[in-house]
Amino acid sequence: MAKPPLGVCGLGLIGGSFALAQRKLGRHVIGIDASAEAAAAAVARAAVDAGGQDPSMLADCEAILVAVPVRATAEKFETLAGARIRPQAIFDAGSTKTNVLDAAAAAFGDDAEKFVASHPIAGTELSGVRAAAADLFRNRRVLICPTEDTDASSLSLVEKLWQDCGAQTERLGAQEHDRLFAGVSHLPHVLAYALVGALSHSPDREQLLKYAASGFRDFTRIASSNPVMWRDICLANRANLLEAIDEYGSQVADLRNAIEAADADRLQAYFSEVRDLRNSWLAQQGL
Amino acid sequence: MAKPPLGVCGLGLIGGSFALAQRKLGRHVIGIDASAEAAAAAVARAAVDAGGQDPSMLADCEAILVAVPVRATAEKFETLAGARIRPQAIFDAGSTKTNVLDAAAAAFGDDAEKFVASHPIAGTELSGVRAAAADLFRNRRVLICPTEDTDASSLSLVEKLWQDCGAQTERLGAQEHDRLFAGVSHLPHVLAYALVGALSHSPDREQLLKYAASGFRDFTRIASSNPVMWRDICLANRANLLEAIDEYGSQVADLRNAIEAADADRLQAYFSEVRDLRNSWLAQQGL
Repeated sequence: MAKPPLGVCGLGLIGGSFALAQRKLGRHVIGIDASAEAAAAAVARAAVDAGGQDPSMLADCEAILVAVPVRATAEKFETLAGARIRPQAIFDAGSTKTNVLDAAAAAFGDDAEKFVASHPIAGTELSGVRAAAADLFRNRRVLICPTEDTDASSLSLVEKLWQDCGAQTERLGAQEHDRLFAGVSHLPHVLAYALVGALSHSPDREQLLKYAASGFRDFTRIASSNPVMWRDICLANRANLLEAIDEYGSQVADLRNAIEAADADRLQAYFSEVRDLRNSWLAQQGL
Repeated sequence: MAKPPLGVCGLGLIGGSFALAQRKLGRHVIGIDASAEAAAAAVARAAVDAGGQDPSMLADCEAILVAVPVRATAEKFETLAGARIRPQAIFDAGSTKTNVLDAAAAAFGDDAEKFVASHPIAGTELSGVRAAAADLFRNRRVLICPTEDTDASSLSLVEKLWQDCGAQTERLGAQEHDRLFAGVSHLPHVLAYALVGALSHSPDREQLLKYAASGFRDFTRIASSNPVMWRDICLANRANLLEAIDEYGSQVADLRNAIEAADADRLQAYFSEVRDLRNSWLAQQGL
């Protein structure tokens, strides 16, 4: 007997890539998107077997991935709950997790135990289903943030679905997740946006852009990321992010003091320590 | 008649790459380095025809490239002047220019007119002659910062030598150069070092490193750069860099305020503007 279909709500980079990976494994995938154009693009790319805008299309799905910007997630949960769509599991792919768990509890009530918060550590600065790829999650980590109430079979189903995409799943508390990702991901995005912003607002803007080279290009790659997605992440993880910005500010202040004091030894020691740490990290990651 | 040899003082990434490019064109290249090991490595790589530690090896060179970290440059100038090495042109490849022109004036006296300050916008986070490549300067910009006193034939010789390496030369005032590069290059290096530093000094260090992904990797690539080189750049361009750090700080403060105030419109507008600017820059650069 054929397996029941899988559903994807939000046919962007992540939803499209998940759909492509599952279709490659022979699963039937139904996708919806608030934008008829995005749904049509997903059908045209053969990322989904059927696509549209109507949530009722997802009625018979075994599991539904909600892959929309963080702030829109709560609204999609309400829509699915309102349409009485009750799959075995609903899961997300957002970069923040406590807010999503709160939204699931509010929208799904008792059914919230079938919601599994997940975060694939994958993506690019590109957006949309046209950038999607079946192998986006291959050998990537997907963090799963269960709560005490999470249904065990929903949890193992979602872990299995990510593993089928080639990912390694790993469990982590939602609060810890959000604190760690504020430092390692959300903060660098804010800093990269701010660097391009500083340059953009400078009277020397044209000349600065002219001389910007590969260091600048790589440093700011993430500043080409989806503005709505990152607006939502900043807001959803506000408290942790503000703390990370302030901790970073004190590091910059330390370095600034060393530069102002022309403290050559301190600068060299700091730069050396940091380089060595980064290089051993790269080696460990096999990057 | 064979052309006179070219000299390279400092056989690292930049000096080694220049030597490789010139040898490929059939020029005879003599290299010296304070480190016997570095000189031997350059000979072993066939980056130079002859290598050693003694400045007198460079006595008959038509032009000499001094390619050492910024703070060591003044000392090398003194060494060459003290050894009465008087080529048609001496030039450097440092990332800061006003300090190098001051050092040349102090070391060479009347001969300082034969010094040409230059800055190839090329390089990687790797160091040393082993990372050198004959094509490192191909299609890259080399900025040339002549003064009112610069000798015209020395200037055109140095421009020709860089062009022979495949680079496009362009003239720019030294002060303007240093102001622009503080913003577009030196600042991002400090910020990348500080991000790895913040992570390194965090109690969550091990977990942060575990979850750091490609965004973090690219943002911090330049934090693997040579610590001595960047210590010297920070000190040589101190005033401009401090100003750039402070301007950047006010951009981050603006963003921080918008995050704290949960100002979604402001965040989205800022991120969108920045993304669009960066993407049009990328397209213009053909990157």
